[in-house]
Amino acid sequence: MNLHLGKTWGLRRMANEAGHFTMVALDQRPPIANLVAAKRGIAPADVGFADMVAVKRLLVDVLGRSASAMLMDPNYAFPAALDRLPAQAGLVVTLEDHRFRDTPGGRLSHSIRDWSVEKIKRAGGDGVKVLAWYRPDAAPDVLAHQKDYVRTIGEACRRWDIPYVLELLVYPFPKSAGHTTDYVEAPEKLPQLVLDSVAEFARPEYGVDLYKLESPLPGATLPAPDGSAAHAAAQRWFDDLGAICRQAGIPWVMLSAGVTPAQFQRVMAYAYAAGANGFLAGRAIWWEALQAFPDLEACRARLQAQGVRTLDELGALTQRHATAWRPDYSAFGRMQAEGELCAAYA
Amino acid sequence: MNLHLGKTWGLRRMANEAGHFTMVALDQRPPIANLVAAKRGIAPADVGFADMVAVKRLLVDVLGRSASAMLMDPNYAFPAALDRLPAQAGLVVTLEDHRFRDTPGGRLSHSIRDWSVEKIKRAGGDGVKVLAWYRPDAAPDVLAHQKDYVRTIGEACRRWDIPYVLELLVYPFPKSAGHTTDYVEAPEKLPQLVLDSVAEFARPEYGVDLYKLESPLPGATLPAPDGSAAHAAAQRWFDDLGAICRQAGIPWVMLSAGVTPAQFQRVMAYAYAAGANGFLAGRAIWWEALQAFPDLEACRARLQAQGVRTLDELGALTQRHATAWRPDYSAFGRMQAEGELCAAYA
Repeated sequence: MNLHLGKTWGLRRMANEAGHFTMVALDQRPPIANLVAAKRGIAPADVGFADMVAVKRLLVDVLGRSASAMLMDPNYAFPAALDRLPAQAGLVVTLEDHRFRDTPGGRLSHSIRDWSVEKIKRAGGDGVKVLAWYRPDAAPDVLAHQKDYVRTIGEACRRWDIPYVLELLVYPFPKSAGHTTDYVEAPEKLPQLVLDSVAEFARPEYGVDLYKLESPLPGATLPAPDGSAAHAAAQRWFDDLGAICRQAGIPWVMLSAGVTPAQFQRVMAYAYAAGANGFLAGRAIWWEALQAFPDLEACRARLQAQGVRTLDELGALTQRHATAWRPDYSAFGRMQAEGELCAAYA
Repeated sequence: MNLHLGKTWGLRRMANEAGHFTMVALDQRPPIANLVAAKRGIAPADVGFADMVAVKRLLVDVLGRSASAMLMDPNYAFPAALDRLPAQAGLVVTLEDHRFRDTPGGRLSHSIRDWSVEKIKRAGGDGVKVLAWYRPDAAPDVLAHQKDYVRTIGEACRRWDIPYVLELLVYPFPKSAGHTTDYVEAPEKLPQLVLDSVAEFARPEYGVDLYKLESPLPGATLPAPDGSAAHAAAQRWFDDLGAICRQAGIPWVMLSAGVTPAQFQRVMAYAYAAGANGFLAGRAIWWEALQAFPDLEACRARLQAQGVRTLDELGALTQRHATAWRPDYSAFGRMQAEGELCAAYA
């Protein structure tokens, strides 16, 4: 009898009552630092803690009530706004450091210093989120490192019985034209790279409980869902993605990767047609509002008007078209005596 | 910098947004087994798992939405109704076995077999509840055992960073007239025994985060709060209780100990005047409805009518008169750089 009480409870806390994940990410570090730097006219490295904290606090303040869960990093978001997060919302916590190592053969991920799955669990997190940069055509030693990183965290998540939310991002190699260490959709991104990455980490040995996936095609380039050949061709990539997840029994949500709200609505229409269970989106929801920085009151007003509307519209789309995730409590029905659950839960 | 992220988050999950604890207990084992046995005309030892599970499932079904948290035992309540508990409700989990050892010198508590603070934390519990039978005039070896039991769990709750909800109950010695191993208010209960017990476990070494306390006077005997001398005298016992908790900085809620809804309303009026932060009540809310057992549909109807009303009335009283519990996130305000929280959270 396999009881994953903590993983199941954590996923339920992250989902809304319909079994959909309508989650907001605010763990972004470089994108927000870059924005603050640009608006302040300073270098990203000179961005102050107070500015980072102020932005994140605002996001939780305005959006916290409309999200089924929020993704927060321990470096900025926790001190900024853990006190502002409604306790009824799910709390997903970032594990990976945003400062990956960029080598000629590919990107190497590692965890935030002094941070771990155990600490996330002890702190009350409902889920551990890890972004692993990945492309199957990276150098063998890079692939081995990334697989080992993802697998090791999967083992820790099993040990601490906490959901493992794995985000995968394809990226450009250092010498390629579109190279950036920031988190933007590579225009030359190949959908097959996205699919092959997901297929790799759908294997049970990695222990992934929820996927946070990018659009297999750049979100800004998706054709209108008009029944055309282009639409059908694009949908097939999403369907293939959905098939991998369905076969592996892993629920999945989409990330917004900095596309506009309208573009992200379209991404989600494709994703829901392919069986996605929700979204975990950041910039599509709050990027426009933050353009008013450093005028925080103007940011707040825009966020309340545009950000909340975007989130609500996504929520409505989700309610209509998303596949519901359902917890598996079937083991309970087979119990017939008082001590069985305690003995079965190792 | 002392960060109890998990304890704070767990308490927030157990409280409602106003900072009040409006919690329902359904971890009772002997009281429900005895009721089922009486209605079935069988011995308590012969009560079947299915009956226990059916009753607990009903309680979560009908009351789960009106409670800020529910207290569930792993033996019956988890398999009965973990799938029915709204994920937005707090989940408090029982650690102690209901089969204490009754010795001439007093009662000895121990934990449920195959169950632990670690398992409760891993399973996703927001809090660990322990009932420790205690009276300061018990035999020295009994006192030593009980203190050690409570202290050891406190250490584990610190280790796993999960709130420690300690319930204290005074009890009759085996040879006394009112002796029962069931969980009823001893009519000869002395308020000073209740207060001295609380004072003992208010010491920091035990690591208690939330008290679940009994009325210092039998709930059925409390005078009307009419400004009389009897009223003032009774209130003083509650005030003394509140003073101990306030001085120790430990929030506290009251248990209902099987009194009627009207009696429990009165208990809470006294308790709120003394600074209580809410309730964690069981039978006062659902006992009357369960009298229709084994007609579960009749139980459900009564629970929907009477049980929900009792709970709502208690909620309204709480909203008006309870002291709000507020999380302490003051350490966040002193952070000034990116890695501080991770380093500070040991």
